[in-house]
Amino acid sequence: MAKVNDNYLKLPGSYLFSTIGKKVNAFAAANPDKKIIRLGIGDVTQPLAPAIISALHSAVDEMADAATFRGYAPDLGYEFLRNAIAENDYRARGCDIGADEIFVSDGAKCDSGNIQEIFSTDNKIAVCDPVYPVYVDTNVMAGRTGTYQAETETWSDVIYMPCTAETDFAPELPGKTPDLIYLCFPNNPTGSTITRSRLQEWVDYANRVGAVIIYDAAYEAYISQEGVPHSIYECQGARTCAIELHSFSKNAGFTGVRLGYTVVPKDLKVGDVALHGLWARRHGTKYNGAPYIVQRAGEAVYSEEGKAQLQKQVAYYMNNANYILEGLKAAGYTVSGGVNAPYIWLKTPGNMTSWEFFDYLLEQANVVGTPGSGFGPSGEGYFRLTAFGSYENTVEAIDRIRNLSGC
Amino acid sequence: MAKVNDNYLKLPGSYLFSTIGKKVNAFAAANPDKKIIRLGIGDVTQPLAPAIISALHSAVDEMADAATFRGYAPDLGYEFLRNAIAENDYRARGCDIGADEIFVSDGAKCDSGNIQEIFSTDNKIAVCDPVYPVYVDTNVMAGRTGTYQAETETWSDVIYMPCTAETDFAPELPGKTPDLIYLCFPNNPTGSTITRSRLQEWVDYANRVGAVIIYDAAYEAYISQEGVPHSIYECQGARTCAIELHSFSKNAGFTGVRLGYTVVPKDLKVGDVALHGLWARRHGTKYNGAPYIVQRAGEAVYSEEGKAQLQKQVAYYMNNANYILEGLKAAGYTVSGGVNAPYIWLKTPGNMTSWEFFDYLLEQANVVGTPGSGFGPSGEGYFRLTAFGSYENTVEAIDRIRNLSGC
Repeated sequence: MAKVNDNYLKLPGSYLFSTIGKKVNAFAAANPDKKIIRLGIGDVTQPLAPAIISALHSAVDEMADAATFRGYAPDLGYEFLRNAIAENDYRARGCDIGADEIFVSDGAKCDSGNIQEIFSTDNKIAVCDPVYPVYVDTNVMAGRTGTYQAETETWSDVIYMPCTAETDFAPELPGKTPDLIYLCFPNNPTGSTITRSRLQEWVDYANRVGAVIIYDAAYEAYISQEGVPHSIYECQGARTCAIELHSFSKNAGFTGVRLGYTVVPKDLKVGDVALHGLWARRHGTKYNGAPYIVQRAGEAVYSEEGKAQLQKQVAYYMNNANYILEGLKAAGYTVSGGVNAPYIWLKTPGNMTSWEFFDYLLEQANVVGTPGSGFGPSGEGYFRLTAFGSYENTVEAIDRIRNLSGC
Repeated sequence: MAKVNDNYLKLPGSYLFSTIGKKVNAFAAANPDKKIIRLGIGDVTQPLAPAIISALHSAVDEMADAATFRGYAPDLGYEFLRNAIAENDYRARGCDIGADEIFVSDGAKCDSGNIQEIFSTDNKIAVCDPVYPVYVDTNVMAGRTGTYQAETETWSDVIYMPCTAETDFAPELPGKTPDLIYLCFPNNPTGSTITRSRLQEWVDYANRVGAVIIYDAAYEAYISQEGVPHSIYECQGARTCAIELHSFSKNAGFTGVRLGYTVVPKDLKVGDVALHGLWARRHGTKYNGAPYIVQRAGEAVYSEEGKAQLQKQVAYYMNNANYILEGLKAAGYTVSGGVNAPYIWLKTPGNMTSWEFFDYLLEQANVVGTPGSGFGPSGEGYFRLTAFGSYENTVEAIDRIRNLSGC
């Protein structure tokens, strides 16, 4: 008699963004005349840059000819892409990461969900609170989180690191010692960042206690300030304690194209086991490579033309971020983020809960955002808006919110 | 202190196709003048069909325009693709499967590796022997297989169902009762099939003992004989006991494009838990959808133009299969498969082991095949050749093998 993975049954309700989708669809069906503006899910809206479109067309043409057709990709990804990543994202920043330490994948969400598989189920994880829900949910599914405590909306075996206004939305070193530490900077959802010297403290801590840091750098392209690290490998000693996850979704608009990569340095060992070999085994056994045409599109991200075009795309979204930030400030909101990240984190007015504010904003301004509580208990009373809409929609959404406040 | 998933350390050696790749690369480096013909890994060689190329170009153009740009895909896949699958692969064959029971993914390898995650780790699996290594390896990684017994090359907690010449390379119902049963027909590696009435016995058995069948139909496009089922849902009662996996790699040459799907009927329950909901949760949490452009390419597979072009492509490969089959018979080999599958399964001559024959063929004929023992202990003394090469290479490879035998 087959038995299911009981850990799945412990997961409360459904995935945050599915719930939002259902609520928005219900509202739209009941109010067909209302123009809903979506600043909720972190999905991009700008089309792919011309250099990427051109690379995709060329790669498609290659697939039409037996002489240039490509079948199964190499396990770790094509060398042309891994070399471009190593050169541009690492060597150019003075980070010592080789092309053979880079694993190309179909996105950082998948990698951030799958990476825990190479660790024992009795490892204890530490997560920022609030944070991207995938880290915790995938550890729940693996049976690593203990029991769910409904009253606090926390898991008994997870170490939560509160990121609140008091700490400028950055985590402090945890009181209990974790085995795996998930860090995401620039942070989703708060848009907060960490300085290189603060991140160095985390690297030193992990090396000292033998913990592994899983560093999600999905939003690094949005960093605008000096002293904020683009990669954890800018810190001394990170090669022996950190795995880094990267996305092409936010810097190049690949949410519907699907490409990402994970770095596992060869020096990163747990006991005498190199994690590089374990991840290679997982990659080779449970995955079959990103599409050739998509890997060529990824390569174009690093071309001179592609870099120039994407810099403009990032600037477009950051102009939105600035509009949101200034507009909400003018409307009397307490806001943060939006400077090194495409997310604006706001305190809900009048002691509304996050979901109350979600409903209020949807009903009164027809604007969709993301309830902070969906990212963890310390997100309660907060709300996330993204800068990934069009400029016109962003302006209209913020103006509607300002009108609600009468300013 | 982080700890690794010890189950990974139990896996002997590296993945079959990686080992083959290393041996071939070493031979090629030592013998740069030799023309190696690869009939080993099941990778296709024909370019994508014109209807698919055209769909890819159109979808790329859509991504270049903000009005038609697509970001994150729906969790289960786009409706246009799921509807095409439901209509063509199921309703047209009289199978009762709805579009909302289809989960689009980046390939059957990933799905066949990931599907075990929704089951308890104390489920006992049954696999055909020999079989595609991913089924067992991913269960090893999950800790479901007990200890490795090097002398027999088997796992203590796996139920092996030998598929030998005596049973015409089909499995018999197992003596011990399994919880999960992996079946793959047309079979990889033996190329054997199962009749609808025999498969009905498996469905009845699974329903009787409460087991779940994971049915890998990756090669169904190659079925040429009547009475051989294209889907397990052609059997009565399969909706309550079977999950089905499909690939676009072999019917449409998508090995480097990456697309597949999994069917989880809503009636399929374990106790009172519907597996559809669990797989939806896994899909939504650890995966982020196949690329939009690739899903459009998948849709083109089901267009009238696409179907006609792909029928010719399958016929091309099956013409190769026939050449291999007849050529090897003429050379005195004992062979099977190759009629409803693109794989030819041959008995190694002179009591050579599978790897001895691999080396012999590589060195003497410069032809790469796959050692049968790599697929399980009952594959020892057998060898797999694929029909996925070009016609010219297939003819040359078989003629070289015939020359070795002096006929």
